[in-house]
Amino acid sequence: MTAAIAITDPSLILPVVDTLGIFVFGVTGGTVAVRHRLDMFGVVVLAMATALSGGVARDVLLGALPPAALTQPHYLWAALASGFAAFFFHKQIERLGKPVLVLDAMGLGLFAVAGCRKALDFGVDPLAAALLGMLTGVGGGILRDVLINETPRIFSEELYASAALLASVIVVVGHLYGAPGAPVSALAIIAAFLLRIVSWRRGWRAPRAPGS
Amino acid sequence: MTAAIAITDPSLILPVVDTLGIFVFGVTGGTVAVRHRLDMFGVVVLAMATALSGGVARDVLLGALPPAALTQPHYLWAALASGFAAFFFHKQIERLGKPVLVLDAMGLGLFAVAGCRKALDFGVDPLAAALLGMLTGVGGGILRDVLINETPRIFSEELYASAALLASVIVVVGHLYGAPGAPVSALAIIAAFLLRIVSWRRGWRAPRAPGS
Amino acid sequence: MTAAIAITDPSLILPVVDTLGIFVFGVTGGTVAVRHRLDMFGVVVLAMATALSGGVARDVLLGALPPAALTQPHYLWAALASGFAAFFFHKQIERLGKPVLVLDAMGLGLFAVAGCRKALDFGVDPLAAALLGMLTGVGGGILRDVLINETPRIFSEELYASAALLASVIVVVGHLYGAPGAPVSALAIIAAFLLRIVSWRRGWRAPRAPGS
Repeated sequence: MTAAIAITDPSLILPVVDTLGIFVFGVTGGTVAVRHRLDMFGVVVLAMATALSGGVARDVLLGALPPAALTQPHYLWAALASGFAAFFFHKQIERLGKPVLVLDAMGLGLFAVAGCRKALDFGVDPLAAALLGMLTGVGGGILRDVLINETPRIFSEELYASAALLASVIVVVGHLYGAPGAPVSALAIIAAFLLRIVSWRRGWRAPRAPGS
Repeated sequence: MTAAIAITDPSLILPVVDTLGIFVFGVTGGTVAVRHRLDMFGVVVLAMATALSGGVARDVLLGALPPAALTQPHYLWAALASGFAAFFFHKQIERLGKPVLVLDAMGLGLFAVAGCRKALDFGVDPLAAALLGMLTGVGGGILRDVLINETPRIFSEELYASAALLASVIVVVGHLYGAPGAPVSALAIIAAFLLRIVSWRRGWRAPRAPGS
Repeated sequence: MTAAIAITDPSLILPVVDTLGIFVFGVTGGTVAVRHRLDMFGVVVLAMATALSGGVARDVLLGALPPAALTQPHYLWAALASGFAAFFFHKQIERLGKPVLVLDAMGLGLFAVAGCRKALDFGVDPLAAALLGMLTGVGGGILRDVLINETPRIFSEELYASAALLASVIVVVGHLYGAPGAPVSALAIIAAFLLRIVSWRRGWRAPRAPGS
């Protein structure tokens, strides 16, 4: 736990950024809930589900139970706070618009990297680790949309899940080649962020099936 | 397993009431299925999913696997029976109306208390235990509504999840202060019951977001 | 791992057929995704979710974590391949029509048998094992329909889940009477297949609730 470790080992930096990511994801869930005119309780529940379920799904699949969301209370508090933030400040948040998109794109890569690293630590196969990383990034958004009874947006939006997958793949490739963790993680987060933002600005989409 | 333990330790009384709670929850799921004109199989499946999934989600998150629903067959049989009860007696059940609501409100607090206690026994953080208790109470209803392709009712109905949360919070506070389990559990179940029933009769709802 | 074992122990044959089953289930999910005009990414994700989630749910409930889908990469690759097959060849697949239904009916019984056997190996109660087998067979299709925002087809189609349950029940009964595994498994798969195909051709359905 010395400073030297903190600098070389990204797993000691991630919890802080992770908590930020949870908050940002939660805010997106809470804002959707307000738009659907849910009451305070529904807003907070949907925010928490959005914020935590990607990581919870990852931990359940890894057998890392109880999941981090239940054993590290600051995750829960961050998720709770995001719900109340969305409830009371949804107007200001909606007005932000682009900043939320930007933060969400950062959270996406971050969650994917953290999820993928944890999977590799548990010794799962590289392909499985990449998919688990992606699931960690997009899982919360999927549950949010299912609960609100909409087709998950990741199925229709610009390269969203692809960005999470890109981050995961970079981490896996770095891992296979024994590259140092911190710079690879940073690269993965930046790459996911850029892919997401650029695809959003230019309306890039993955191709549709031929003749569909 | 002596009588003295049975009286002081609520965990030995709960299985019986638990089984009742499973049956009641299952009946609500099966009745919804009949209303959606599902066939016998769909009715039984939806009843079982409604009856068991709150507890299953709790056990999965706690890592208490296989979940109680799979290791203690009387839970499965109660869920199965609830499906057939709904299938054959849905008219009588719909006519009951209020009694079902009353039983459901009892089951809600009961499940929340049982879920919260189990989480505390597993040593999870108090906030996490309270949320797991709530999830145990409302999880079945959420899955029921997702499967039937509706927005989960807990997002729109009178203080439903709030009642489950209240029961959990009472248990957690009692636990933190070292209060004896049985009376605290009873108090929690009664409080959840009253909050649910009164909020339903008076149409109480949690507030909406300002300006939403 | 000798040939003699391979012949008498169905668990050594199943992985091969399992992989086929995953591919076929995945193709059904991917084809639905193309019909909903999802992009390539959505098609692959939905195919993988359909192919793998029945088995994943089974493994989560059994506490067999990480699930087989994550520890045995050929399952993942088969699921991935099914998504791309659906994406590029959806027209040919749609034209096949009946062959897909036939393959799907084979996969259904197969998954149910494999799921039920694994549950029995983990020592769960016979009723629970039968239900877990059914869940393994139908879980993927349920998640597919929930993600695409439709009422799960198993709730409305001809005897689909019933066929999976039949296969499971045969395995459980054989297990209780100590019958040899391989012929019982074969019988179960054939019975499920026939029930599904015949019910589909004749439009058999489970009864609706009286007066619903």
